[in-house]
Amino acid sequence: MEERYDIAIIGSGPAGLSAAINAKIRNKRIILFGNKNLSFKLTKAPKINNFLGFYDISGEDLKNKFNEHIDKMGIEITEERINAVYAMGDYFTLMVNEKVYESKALILATGMEYTKPLKGEEELLGKGVGYCATCDAPLYRNKIVTIVGYTQEAEKEANYVSELASKLYYVPMYNESYDLVDKIEILKDKPLEIKGQDKVEKLILKSNEIETDGVFVLKESVAPAQLVPGLLIENEHIKVDRTMKTNIDGCFAAGDCVGFPYQYIKAAGEGQIAALSAVKYLDSLK
Amino acid sequence: MEERYDIAIIGSGPAGLSAAINAKIRNKRIILFGNKNLSFKLTKAPKINNFLGFYDISGEDLKNKFNEHIDKMGIEITEERINAVYAMGDYFTLMVNEKVYESKALILATGMEYTKPLKGEEELLGKGVGYCATCDAPLYRNKIVTIVGYTQEAEKEANYVSELASKLYYVPMYNESYDLVDKIEILKDKPLEIKGQDKVEKLILKSNEIETDGVFVLKESVAPAQLVPGLLIENEHIKVDRTMKTNIDGCFAAGDCVGFPYQYIKAAGEGQIAALSAVKYLDSLK
Repeated sequence: MEERYDIAIIGSGPAGLSAAINAKIRNKRIILFGNKNLSFKLTKAPKINNFLGFYDISGEDLKNKFNEHIDKMGIEITEERINAVYAMGDYFTLMVNEKVYESKALILATGMEYTKPLKGEEELLGKGVGYCATCDAPLYRNKIVTIVGYTQEAEKEANYVSELASKLYYVPMYNESYDLVDKIEILKDKPLEIKGQDKVEKLILKSNEIETDGVFVLKESVAPAQLVPGLLIENEHIKVDRTMKTNIDGCFAAGDCVGFPYQYIKAAGEGQIAALSAVKYLDSLK
Repeated sequence: MEERYDIAIIGSGPAGLSAAINAKIRNKRIILFGNKNLSFKLTKAPKINNFLGFYDISGEDLKNKFNEHIDKMGIEITEERINAVYAMGDYFTLMVNEKVYESKALILATGMEYTKPLKGEEELLGKGVGYCATCDAPLYRNKIVTIVGYTQEAEKEANYVSELASKLYYVPMYNESYDLVDKIEILKDKPLEIKGQDKVEKLILKSNEIETDGVFVLKESVAPAQLVPGLLIENEHIKVDRTMKTNIDGCFAAGDCVGFPYQYIKAAGEGQIAALSAVKYLDSLK
């Protein structure tokens, strides 16, 4: 396990990035979990006029500005999907399947693009259901694996796991062309339920039913209440006060996940507040 | 009087500007009161690293980016100092001495750079005490006028009024070189109290006492509670909820004036929220 970080930030949209630059300026040791593409939502935006300082900019160009900013400050994005976070009192444990990170404070900037869990998904989590296929691949050597992919990123994981698995089903939850190796079987169908007694046995689809040893559900992000047990949610958003503090000591949140409006500079402003509140919290621990 | 605006925004720092661009995008008829220099605080900042998207930028350059943004959107800054705002139920009346503006909603983005009123200032407001020297100049033809200037902007007003007044004293509250016409008498002294029975008679300074018919106190901004009677203040900041709503219906606030941290992108984010909340409020009036 790595040394305990001061602040772990989950999410690489405007809220997470703004939190990261502000925490770094305050000399905190940070780790930023997210996607090197920053935010799918941002990248896809054709035209942005309401982020003060940038008029008539494309999402792609704004993303590049953000990337340049964090690059120049030496901030890197750790491309790992955190599956669960546990509040341990004066620190947090962040689980990436087998791998574990620790931080003194936590900032959630997970956005709102997560999907409802499938029936059976939560019950069988860790019993054949997982959120990181590449991490768990070794457990599925010569076994049947199904990947439910919500973004194109999932295709890379599918290709990788197909090298070890005896059979790989890919259930795409989006319409694009797929960049998958030939041996993968694509199922264009709607997954309804994961079934099994003590471990995963079947995936039920709308017009099909397949036997499988494992199901990886690869979403852009996991719902906050599922991610951090005990986190208080109000009207489908993480409950925070004006300092961006959640109900858990040392845990702050910012951006779409804390409420409307879903806007970039609102998120960036909140990320800044969350970072400065986390810094204050760290000072109080001394 | 001009036609009633949808939203009046007071303040041209990041909060006010962000509110303006967001309200304009929503097709609202807005008026933005402030300073063409935008914000003295911003302009003076040597280096800004924590506004996401701009790394290592000077305050002056960031100001220029902001200016470019509002210019391209056709947003103008009205350089008038609002002295008082009255909530009239479903609209607001904004007073600029003799002149009056009206708006259906109000966004306060006045910053925190206001100064405590002088002793006697509030009591004699409108009775020889004023906040806009050029507006009231005609009333002081051949009279003695004193200008207490907090910023260099005040010098222009002093030069203008000196053409009409029989005598003009200028009390600078800052240390710079002064660009004042010769006939103005500069008093480098600390003003303590404005005195008079029904109207201004004297200005008491720390080591002097002068007779004067009028005193103009030219500050960057007036304290919110003084500006909007009835506005709820908490811990020296305007009290708002997470939608940036104040205790007065239709009145929203954003930026430094609503609380810490005093930071640019926090202010811009709040300005956006305030604008979108004001738009929602306007919709509810229909």
